[in-house]
Amino acid sequence: MSDPTPQTDGVTEPLSPAAAELVGLLAYAELTAFERLAEDASQSPELADRIQLAGLAATQIDHFRMLYDRLAAAGVDPMAAMQQFRAAFDDFHAHTAPRDWLESLVKAYVGDGLAADFYREVADGAEPGVADLVRTVSDDQLYRDLAVSRLTAAIQADPAVAGRLALWARRLVGEALSQAQRVASDHEALAELLTGSTDRPGRDLAELSAMFTRLVTRHNERMRTVGLRT
Amino acid sequence: MSDPTPQTDGVTEPLSPAAAELVGLLAYAELTAFERLAEDASQSPELADRIQLAGLAATQIDHFRMLYDRLAAAGVDPMAAMQQFRAAFDDFHAHTAPRDWLESLVKAYVGDGLAADFYREVADGAEPGVADLVRTVSDDQLYRDLAVSRLTAAIQADPAVAGRLALWARRLVGEALSQAQRVASDHEALAELLTGSTDRPGRDLAELSAMFTRLVTRHNERMRTVGLRT
Repeated sequence: MSDPTPQTDGVTEPLSPAAAELVGLLAYAELTAFERLAEDASQSPELADRIQLAGLAATQIDHFRMLYDRLAAAGVDPMAAMQQFRAAFDDFHAHTAPRDWLESLVKAYVGDGLAADFYREVADGAEPGVADLVRTVSDDQLYRDLAVSRLTAAIQADPAVAGRLALWARRLVGEALSQAQRVASDHEALAELLTGSTDRPGRDLAELSAMFTRLVTRHNERMRTVGLRT
Repeated sequence: MSDPTPQTDGVTEPLSPAAAELVGLLAYAELTAFERLAEDASQSPELADRIQLAGLAATQIDHFRMLYDRLAAAGVDPMAAMQQFRAAFDDFHAHTAPRDWLESLVKAYVGDGLAADFYREVADGAEPGVADLVRTVSDDQLYRDLAVSRLTAAIQADPAVAGRLALWARRLVGEALSQAQRVASDHEALAELLTGSTDRPGRDLAELSAMFTRLVTRHNERMRTVGLRT
């Protein structure tokens, strides 16, 4: 990562065009996740939470480096690979700026949780090495534990916030789906990881529908876990 | 760092009260440095700068962990050790919120540069292991290279910004000195690392004066390097 020039002459681990798009998307996602966690860290009222969130943010940079280096190892320009997803992520974040600490927690817990589930589903269609990398960087267990504990406590202390946060979660999901739609229609190779292409069979309609059902089920579980209505 | 409870029963590396204060101060300084670099990363116009600043921010967390673990190894509660410096740092940052990307760069380059020089001077009075730790976490070479390149380019492109940034740098130094004064008067043990105590000889007045001259000389060099008047 220290040298931003891609090493096209020493390609050791090629990536399919679809996998390169997926890794580029995830790299940009990790960079924005870092920035949001760091921002949350600085906003959190408790010193212990600030420290924990700062540590989690640093982990995103470790993940980012793995993805960046994977692109470079394939002779792909990491900057260009990320740049094509910048507008979708930046628009998502611009439309979902949290107004307080609890909204930040819900955004990362619900939004990143849904995104991580989705990336793992997409990765199932990619080459094996890439699928493993995606699973590694999509592991959000540490954040989930923190968010569940803080959100549960906040909602128990003041049940009235649950309504506002449930509405907020719905808005997040709506924005996320709208940006996912945009990414899919602009990036054919990436979309084909989900739907298959003419020369590679993908999921049929029944499988796609089953996948969305899994995503919704896990989302609803996350909501219930912290006491939010779906 | 994963366990926030200090391990008082396995003390392997004791710290003098003054060294514990110094390490606690630096730990809190690194945490706030992380938060500011991460904020600067998210504000920087170029993707390449965002990535580099995010990486530098993550380095501050590595430093933070070294300091946190050093306190815990000495049986000192890291949270309490940091907490006592929170007001001074938070007030400094509240009084010196940068209005744009260039002011952020100057703040980190000039402010952190001066602070790092000062910490290294203080460390000379501490026990050898602590002095080495302070020098490791105070190494700001990577940030300096980035700041010098961006500030020099910005001032060459628009010489009019130099006046505003020079004024801004003076305000930063004034605020830093005022908070340093406050920390010194509230923390006798720490101050004695500079001035000595009744049972340990420290710097005499001539040495203290020579130290301030060194700090000012290095500050002026930093300003000149990027084309700012002192």
